[in-house]
Amino acid sequence: MPHQHAYDLGLDKNEANYVQLSPLSFLRRAAQVYPDSCALVYGDLRQTWGETYARCVRLAGALAAHGVGAGDTVAVMLPNVPAMFECHFGVPMTGAVLNTLNTRLDGEALAFMLQHGGAKVLLVDPEFAPAIERALAMLGDRRPLIIDVEDANAPTSRRLGTATYEELLAGGDPHYAWRLPADEWDAIALNYTSGTTGNPKGVVTHHRGAYLNAASNAIGWGVPHHAVYLWTLPMFHCNGWCFPWTMALIAGTSVCLRRIDVAQIYALVREHRVSHLCGAPIVYSMLTNAPEALRQGLDHPISGLIAGAAPPVAVIEACEAIGISLTHVYGLTEVYGPAAVCAKQPSWSTLPAAEQARLNGRQGVPYPLQETVAVIDPATLQPVPADGRTVGEIVFRGNGVMKGYLKNPEATAEAFAGGWFHTGDLAVVHADGYVKITDRSKDVIISGGENISSLEVEDVLHRHPAVMLAAVVAQPDARWGEVPCAYVELKPGATLSAEELTAFCRAQLAGFKVPKRFEFGEIAKTSTGKVQKFILRERSRSASAIE
Amino acid sequence: MPHQHAYDLGLDKNEANYVQLSPLSFLRRAAQVYPDSCALVYGDLRQTWGETYARCVRLAGALAAHGVGAGDTVAVMLPNVPAMFECHFGVPMTGAVLNTLNTRLDGEALAFMLQHGGAKVLLVDPEFAPAIERALAMLGDRRPLIIDVEDANAPTSRRLGTATYEELLAGGDPHYAWRLPADEWDAIALNYTSGTTGNPKGVVTHHRGAYLNAASNAIGWGVPHHAVYLWTLPMFHCNGWCFPWTMALIAGTSVCLRRIDVAQIYALVREHRVSHLCGAPIVYSMLTNAPEALRQGLDHPISGLIAGAAPPVAVIEACEAIGISLTHVYGLTEVYGPAAVCAKQPSWSTLPAAEQARLNGRQGVPYPLQETVAVIDPATLQPVPADGRTVGEIVFRGNGVMKGYLKNPEATAEAFAGGWFHTGDLAVVHADGYVKITDRSKDVIISGGENISSLEVEDVLHRHPAVMLAAVVAQPDARWGEVPCAYVELKPGATLSAEELTAFCRAQLAGFKVPKRFEFGEIAKTSTGKVQKFILRERSRSASAIE
Repeated sequence: MPHQHAYDLGLDKNEANYVQLSPLSFLRRAAQVYPDSCALVYGDLRQTWGETYARCVRLAGALAAHGVGAGDTVAVMLPNVPAMFECHFGVPMTGAVLNTLNTRLDGEALAFMLQHGGAKVLLVDPEFAPAIERALAMLGDRRPLIIDVEDANAPTSRRLGTATYEELLAGGDPHYAWRLPADEWDAIALNYTSGTTGNPKGVVTHHRGAYLNAASNAIGWGVPHHAVYLWTLPMFHCNGWCFPWTMALIAGTSVCLRRIDVAQIYALVREHRVSHLCGAPIVYSMLTNAPEALRQGLDHPISGLIAGAAPPVAVIEACEAIGISLTHVYGLTEVYGPAAVCAKQPSWSTLPAAEQARLNGRQGVPYPLQETVAVIDPATLQPVPADGRTVGEIVFRGNGVMKGYLKNPEATAEAFAGGWFHTGDLAVVHADGYVKITDRSKDVIISGGENISSLEVEDVLHRHPAVMLAAVVAQPDARWGEVPCAYVELKPGATLSAEELTAFCRAQLAGFKVPKRFEFGEIAKTSTGKVQKFILRERSRSASAIE
Repeated sequence: MPHQHAYDLGLDKNEANYVQLSPLSFLRRAAQVYPDSCALVYGDLRQTWGETYARCVRLAGALAAHGVGAGDTVAVMLPNVPAMFECHFGVPMTGAVLNTLNTRLDGEALAFMLQHGGAKVLLVDPEFAPAIERALAMLGDRRPLIIDVEDANAPTSRRLGTATYEELLAGGDPHYAWRLPADEWDAIALNYTSGTTGNPKGVVTHHRGAYLNAASNAIGWGVPHHAVYLWTLPMFHCNGWCFPWTMALIAGTSVCLRRIDVAQIYALVREHRVSHLCGAPIVYSMLTNAPEALRQGLDHPISGLIAGAAPPVAVIEACEAIGISLTHVYGLTEVYGPAAVCAKQPSWSTLPAAEQARLNGRQGVPYPLQETVAVIDPATLQPVPADGRTVGEIVFRGNGVMKGYLKNPEATAEAFAGGWFHTGDLAVVHADGYVKITDRSKDVIISGGENISSLEVEDVLHRHPAVMLAAVVAQPDARWGEVPCAYVELKPGATLSAEELTAFCRAQLAGFKVPKRFEFGEIAKTSTGKVQKFILRERSRSASAIE
């Protein structure tokens, strides 16, 4: 037994000095301190924090009355509507775990998740009822209780369940005695990550991490009280990088949005003086490439977090030019979304815009309340030198790291090998300590023994004035093993030939890095705007077979 | 055994996903991310975060080499110099506990603290060497190791020890392998609170609370990255309300200050573009009453936290008038300083200045990461109604609450009775949920069976244009039991008679609340600017005996 000193004797935790960390405390405080401040905007709806709290308590009461409690799963198939926001509080208030389903998914994948996650209740938006119906048909008898979340803005009014969300709430006990989790290590959310092979893995996050990540978002991004946040990022994507909980912490206003529409975005930004938004590079590309008429009358500064892929330098530059100040963050679902940030150095502000954009395009340093981001040699687990050249794997350590994968001990053990969370992303460390992804492991193109960074080639393509979006993948090649193949989406009205683009690349890249094939047209993207490289790889494989 | 569900099975804490919360992580991150940003300014000294980190590691290494480790106490008798800031990191890096001594104290009180706290090492500023020498003489053989912290700005160069602080650091291992605490519940600091009776109590705080309080300071006050903070508040006072740790979190600049001097304060504010400061009302009174010439050339906004006593409405108004935006916080050493904040409502901004000042003068609502502040009936422990009239005791619950009092189980049990931390302060709750102190328990004057709030009388006195500072205490009275007695400090050059002030009070207060005796002159204050009411009470007692 270790020696006990005076600072431990009789100075134990008690009810007064130790409270389990949970973002549910943020909701309670927002409702207590700012009951009349606006929490949610959606169409004509304006809902205060006081009202939001009352509705979340009713939701929790209603779920509890249906037998939902600690360790149960409540799944939702919802766009960014107010009910989705409320579920981030009402579900964990019962002790249950919120499982947000990706609304782009269909039958089989959804059936797997509902079964694997063991959802007891499922909330569905009418637009996604057909996909859910196909999934339920595969589930057989083990159907969860279905609740329809009606929405006048949905394209259909299709119903699957026996009760609507509003009926559920109306029946919920308005005085339901919700409690903080028994332990801050208890699960709060379940998010399935879509792998390119095998079954999806269920990332389980905990209350402690959700609390600290929310605070880290507020501190790292300097989000002020009552910020107005536009929901361009799906809440099903890593709990909207956990911003529902950040918004409660700073008692901000969430402007909801069913789908990404650039005209509507600009209208909402103008009407509500939106101050903050998050998104993948494609969201910002859309904003910067929108007709100038849409941007009329916008005179207030906007802060954007950008993540989801390495942000093209051109996008960062274009955003700054129209008054959107971007902060680049990096993370994965396993680390609550942002877990590294490209923290802006005071000294950068005097550099040329292009240089600033280059510096801001790096993955950076640990998020304020995350402990460590490191780049290690996968074999020795030792950090690589900060020389900007030696490639290693990005790993994380800190309180913003998941509990593990649900019912998947092998994947969990692999992810945590050696006491680090392994991202699978390859990177170098620059002399200033900033991490820079060279490539997601699977994005390296190996051509004639030379490694080609698809990101490097994409960065060059994005510099062409006619290019809206570019994605480069490996195409099997009989002679070289692999060669780069580029998928290119042009700006509205622009024209460009493969020859012109080849010449443009030749002027800036080594010959072996210039794409050998260009395909023009819309690029396959996930609902979060992430380019679906695995689809492009399929296509380039087929193309190579045909050739 | 409770039922274990899938969210617990095989999803345990490990090295990758669970790190003990400690503000030491903030220092490491500041040094890693912003090594060249300025951490400390003192006279001609400019010290970066990289340098500060290196010095803290050396300090920790040197202390460890002297046998300092987990559960040991290192005491410091220092003004707001850089060494004091460094001790907030270097001492806990060894696992030891930092005990900051109040530099206004003398022999006996210091001897008690050194003995009771068991200080193994004591760092001393030359100015306070005589007081420490008297204390050591009372300690006998159990002398701690004494380190002299030399300072060219100190009034003397008196040395007590065998080594200086710089010699200590020079001998410290620059590669000392400091570690986070084994448990976030481990003690980080020991602060003695000066009671009016009996021995001081040693408040023991923990790493978890220090971490969360630092984040709460940053979020609640909206402190941006690289804020420039002026040390008008002594670091020995509740660890400078824990701002050394907040400054590390936001990588800000600390402008050090040996003593409160209004000309020097304005010079530093101008030179370094100070953006933030904290203090008791007297600090702000000094700033607002300073000759206008001192304020010349100041054109940037300044944010001030005000606490330590109920802020007179007149002080809040006067600060706003010269561009200092005040936020009123409330707390005690036992709750890491600020644990409640008078959060400004958006709707207040359109109200008249006096009304805003009145609203801002309340103790308010829980700090962002503090769980609960409540006003309860001391007998039933039930919350009083939010009617603005029913008086109860302010209590706290949350992670920003001390472990307890060192070697004082009775006081600890009393402080935590019923699962709340009891402040001993009496308050009401307004209809909007904001707590307002009616009186520190001992500040109620009971006259002819009627309760008189000394704060109410003080607020009236502060409205008189000639009054700089006023304090009202009970004076024993043969007929009424007690009567109010007022101590008044006038503004420079102002004159005022007791008769004039009596008439002024009569116009605004019920007759029994008007002070029966006025005494003009400087008011006894602690080093933190807190009025020493117990001294005034002594004097009013003597005065009543003479009369």
